[in-house]
Amino acid sequence: MTSHAEQSAVTVLGLGPMGRALAGAFLDAGLRTTVWNRTPGKDGELVERGAVSARSPEEAVGASGLTVICVVNYDAVDAIVRRGAVTDALKGRTVVNLTADTPDRARDNATWAAEHGFGYLDGAIMTPITTIGTPAGVFLHSGPEELYREHRPTLDALGGTHTHLGEDIGRAAAYDIALLDIFWTAMAGYAHALAVARAEGVTARELVPFAKGIGTILPPIFERAAADVDSGRFSGEGNPITSAVSSMAHIVHTSEAHGIDAGVMRAAEGLARRAIGRGHGTDGFFQITEILNPR
Amino acid sequence: MTSHAEQSAVTVLGLGPMGRALAGAFLDAGLRTTVWNRTPGKDGELVERGAVSARSPEEAVGASGLTVICVVNYDAVDAIVRRGAVTDALKGRTVVNLTADTPDRARDNATWAAEHGFGYLDGAIMTPITTIGTPAGVFLHSGPEELYREHRPTLDALGGTHTHLGEDIGRAAAYDIALLDIFWTAMAGYAHALAVARAEGVTARELVPFAKGIGTILPPIFERAAADVDSGRFSGEGNPITSAVSSMAHIVHTSEAHGIDAGVMRAAEGLARRAIGRGHGTDGFFQITEILNPR
Ligand SMILES: NC(=O)c1ccc[n+]([C@@H]2O[C@H](COP(=O)([O-])OP(=O)(O)OC[C@H]3O[C@@H](n4cnc5c(N)ncnc54)[C@H](OP(=O)(O)O)[C@@H]3O)[C@@H](O)[C@H]2O)c1
Ligand SMILES: NC(=O)c1ccc[n+]([C@@H]2O[C@H](COP(=O)([O-])OP(=O)(O)OC[C@H]3O[C@@H](n4cnc5c(N)ncnc54)[C@H](OP(=O)(O)O)[C@@H]3O)[C@@H](O)[C@H]2O)c1
Repeated sequence: MTSHAEQSAVTVLGLGPMGRALAGAFLDAGLRTTVWNRTPGKDGELVERGAVSARSPEEAVGASGLTVICVVNYDAVDAIVRRGAVTDALKGRTVVNLTADTPDRARDNATWAAEHGFGYLDGAIMTPITTIGTPAGVFLHSGPEELYREHRPTLDALGGTHTHLGEDIGRAAAYDIALLDIFWTAMAGYAHALAVARAEGVTARELVPFAKGIGTILPPIFERAAADVDSGRFSGEGNPITSAVSSMAHIVHTSEAHGIDAGVMRAAEGLARRAIGRGHGTDGFFQITEILNPR
Repeated sequence: MTSHAEQSAVTVLGLGPMGRALAGAFLDAGLRTTVWNRTPGKDGELVERGAVSARSPEEAVGASGLTVICVVNYDAVDAIVRRGAVTDALKGRTVVNLTADTPDRARDNATWAAEHGFGYLDGAIMTPITTIGTPAGVFLHSGPEELYREHRPTLDALGGTHTHLGEDIGRAAAYDIALLDIFWTAMAGYAHALAVARAEGVTARELVPFAKGIGTILPPIFERAAADVDSGRFSGEGNPITSAVSSMAHIVHTSEAHGIDAGVMRAAEGLARRAIGRGHGTDGFFQITEILNPR
């Protein structure tokens, strides 16, 4: 059990760009905010704004009922918290781990937290640092419902929308992985498109209004494809996978004609060709989800 | 020179999903519309709506001053129009090729059209069939400005926005390639994400509201990245490439732990790791555009 003072307090471990943004939002909400980072000197601005700088992670977690961790990955989380002094200090308190990693490691962390007598919620942040403390932030959480309800008021200080995905502790990480898969693949596609455009004498600034247009048509396509994928029916009406493969081949050809690595598109084209090879040429593109993970 | 009747007429070669949508929009706009398709029987509904069904491509192109071609690729275009009877019938008329293919082949077509004494504009359609005849359609064109201005009124019957990208005939195809690169890479990422989500017990329907959220954050990120790429300065502030690679590795790990091919993400991760290996770890992700196509 934590004291009342500790309940209106929060600790942030990890002061990378995202950790600093989170701590800043807690400060803006008037919470007593204690911060720590492996490499010292990252908390200057936060301390000016009223944050308490802890000298060690154990001192940091001891200052608040709730500790939010946000570092590069769970190896970094382990390096910080899987030490006797820190687990002792965490006893009876709660950790919300907003670091991105895999569902299996989230499950592993929950087991370890239970063994050491502290609460554990796993979460994921789906939007950039600029959205923290604004309505645009998107946060996903999973783990014990009751624990989530208890700490929800503190988390609300981060702004945005918070969704509890269920008691399965791996669920936030599973969503995170799937959503980052979309995000980073799209980023790689855009980076490659800009390389090919430049080779064709088209600047990024010239292409960007149309690139933004592509971004705009994605959400409704995502919506329709979701229904196809859940039902296992992939109507190619209006856009058969053979037509997709033809476009993909043009992209590979143009890229490689300029000496630009087309490995990402080659891999995607290979999946689509596998679907065609299995007799799905007139189906829609999302047939490749079945190729990847047959039901 | 074409007669007045031929100027308010248009021919559509190719009646796949897109060709049919284009012909339908021309009919809706009250143009005398002649249609032809390699495989007969695709024009039933169009003929009911008033289209004239031609028995051959040469008969089709002879019926109008402007012929719009929209088939799967330029091999298919060649199979239809690179025959004496068709080029003879095209003399003094104009072709707008809305088929997707590569910039080099667009240039090749323009040379061939000039040799045979007919006008040639190359174009690309950036939006799905459902947008044709609506304000949401996006059409790109390149080739002789004067020819474009002459036929713009007919093209306007397709609705949407039409942009003339310049006299270089390859420019529409170059934009098309770059934009389809973004589109199909993002599609592949989404298809893969849904496969991984399913393996984690998350349905497409559950993921889709958040997936749409990812779609929504792309346009402003595209905008910022364009400035970085044109200037060659890749600030990693807020999101260093090392952090991206960490996420990508989680995606590959989770995918492969479920036996799901992660080739697309592996290729993207490889590019990012190459950037890190060259000393750009603290730069932003779009440094990979330089890795792909050094200036
Ligand atoms: N930035 C964004 O826009 C964004 C958006 C959504 C989610 N996220 C997620 O938020 C998390 C944090 O991201 P970030 O942007 O702040 O930058 P980051 O580069 O992913 O993480 C930097 C933080 O990790 C710490 N760290 C790295 N290795 C460590 C180790 N071995 N031991 C202890 N600490 C270690 C760093 O400490 P030092 O200063 O000592 O190196 C720093 O505090 C990531 O999981 C990321 O995926 C970020
Ligand atoms: N569908 C969309 O949403 C969309 C969006 C933007 C751009 N586009 C572009 O529009 C173009 C047409 O696409 P689509 O959706 O209509 O379907 P498609 O499958 O790409 O093309 C089908 C058309 O190509 C013809 N064709 C194929 N091989 C041929 C050959 N060897 N000789 C003669 N004709 C041949 C087909 O004739 P048969 O009926 O005889 O096979 C049919 O008319 C493509 O370049 C595509 O990239 C489509």
